[in-house]
Amino acid sequence: MKNILVASPAPRDALDPLAGSANLLWLADMSPEELEAALPSVDCLFVNFWPKELDGARLAKMTRLSFVQSGLAGVNHIPFGELSPDVTVSSNAGGYSDEVGEFAWGLLLAGAKRIVRFGAEVSENQLRSPLELGREVVVLRGRTLGVMGYGGIGRVVARIGAAFGMKVKVYSRRRETGGGVEFFDGASGLDQLLRTSDAVVLAVPLTNSTRKAIGREQLVSMRRGAILVNVARAEVVDQQAVYEHLVQYKDFVYATDVWWTKDGRECYPPELPFLGLRNFIGTPHVAGPSAVASGGPLRNSLDNLTRYAKGELVRNVVDRSDYL
Amino acid sequence: MKNILVASPAPRDALDPLAGSANLLWLADMSPEELEAALPSVDCLFVNFWPKELDGARLAKMTRLSFVQSGLAGVNHIPFGELSPDVTVSSNAGGYSDEVGEFAWGLLLAGAKRIVRFGAEVSENQLRSPLELGREVVVLRGRTLGVMGYGGIGRVVARIGAAFGMKVKVYSRRRETGGGVEFFDGASGLDQLLRTSDAVVLAVPLTNSTRKAIGREQLVSMRRGAILVNVARAEVVDQQAVYEHLVQYKDFVYATDVWWTKDGRECYPPELPFLGLRNFIGTPHVAGPSAVASGGPLRNSLDNLTRYAKGELVRNVVDRSDYL
Repeated sequence: MKNILVASPAPRDALDPLAGSANLLWLADMSPEELEAALPSVDCLFVNFWPKELDGARLAKMTRLSFVQSGLAGVNHIPFGELSPDVTVSSNAGGYSDEVGEFAWGLLLAGAKRIVRFGAEVSENQLRSPLELGREVVVLRGRTLGVMGYGGIGRVVARIGAAFGMKVKVYSRRRETGGGVEFFDGASGLDQLLRTSDAVVLAVPLTNSTRKAIGREQLVSMRRGAILVNVARAEVVDQQAVYEHLVQYKDFVYATDVWWTKDGRECYPPELPFLGLRNFIGTPHVAGPSAVASGGPLRNSLDNLTRYAKGELVRNVVDRSDYL
Repeated sequence: MKNILVASPAPRDALDPLAGSANLLWLADMSPEELEAALPSVDCLFVNFWPKELDGARLAKMTRLSFVQSGLAGVNHIPFGELSPDVTVSSNAGGYSDEVGEFAWGLLLAGAKRIVRFGAEVSENQLRSPLELGREVVVLRGRTLGVMGYGGIGRVVARIGAAFGMKVKVYSRRRETGGGVEFFDGASGLDQLLRTSDAVVLAVPLTNSTRKAIGREQLVSMRRGAILVNVARAEVVDQQAVYEHLVQYKDFVYATDVWWTKDGRECYPPELPFLGLRNFIGTPHVAGPSAVASGGPLRNSLDNLTRYAKGELVRNVVDRSDYL
């Protein structure tokens, strides 16, 4: 039987299906002494955010550790540098796809239809003519949607884009075809997608190659009235560059559910005064959490933990070189 | 050649195609005396909002009037009681479908995903736990969308709902089938649709039978956390009833682009203090105007005016008994 150290806030009974094939150790129940004693026996970790208890010294004592399952879709919080290269790490890809994909559309439309900005004008009793206001609204039918990343979330975003009558372009590392979608890859592919899209949704993991993938140069290449939506990780976008772009181009919109981190935690208000900009829309990282109540993300993790416990091949294995 | 009195703010050259088959008289160019002199020769009126110059006394002098083309999708502003029953009135149905349908989704998602409310919390630096916030987000996949009205706008709304993985129910006077949509008609059909939908989009014309169709009784029958979206006319909803409902049920959302009229004009802030409610979302009637820049609504009107001028059958004729 494998020993799984659970450092996720999962409800106890949700992991009952593992009972026959693994021993569960709950980090929240353990004293520091108990944890120290248990470290050498841990085969597997199930984490959401990385627990501060599991620092480098303790990780070094987990000599049997062979598998880490993330409860979050992204694994950018995992300290790959402190894990042995023999440890397999799986993301929770797919666990949040529908909910985060829907949320991306909420942000995209809030930007395109100026819902927040015009709502504020109504509250402030600003009266502009309907024709003037109407010209500021972005009509999506016939325009181009760019989706950066074509995992579960990107696919949901693309499917809905087609229903809006948009041309859908996808940037993906994997060359794919079909589905009425045009695929792009490589740096020049990303440039081309950004230059020719009216709305861009970021749905990539935060890796070495996606960190600050959207910087000053990329922003300047985008269409003037474009809408950039981030449901991935804030760090895919360069904070200073997007702030300056928003200040300079009032008809460009940045709508995000994710925030730049400081000391390992997402924080808002962010360092720069985004909240005062009418072309910035921010929500407090709720897209992923909106999936939790359904139990979907946990079922997805549990499925993989069960595979591990039974000695089967696990899914959603990430490439550590993307993160080191 | 027919004489068409243009009381719409259409650009002059946009009506050039009519030049060979009709004489155009521009209301904006006429002195009161010129208008008086022209009244007996007017065959056709092209109006957006009803012009105050064309009061009952002047209408009585338009003895040749046989056709009124509305530049707006709705014709509820037309004084049917002062028009002879022989006058044919056409709406601009279809001219705004894509844009208003898209806008309805902007409002629906702003409500479901709490974009405006959570955005305000971010600005006010309210920090609630992501899990608490996530539970308040409405996930649409697998839920039921009710669409009241199945003209151009309703069809666009329904098509997008299917892409979100929603079950789509439609209330329509015309019994139809197909498209994976479930149809309802009659008062009991409307009740059933309202009772069983998680989000309801109002996309009906304002007629005698739709005025205050959504009153206290209907609101109470709706699901607790439902989202009601209005891109039709405010008067389809009873103002007092929806205000009280929003105050009582904090998780019910009313998101509207249209406002109750006072002295014939839509006005906000409305009589009741909706703007202070976190479960109310309001935009300043921009959905229709967002279509104007494309020229689509004007082309749609022009097509019908051309049919009229050439003696062909016109489209989108409304039933005056719906409005009297």
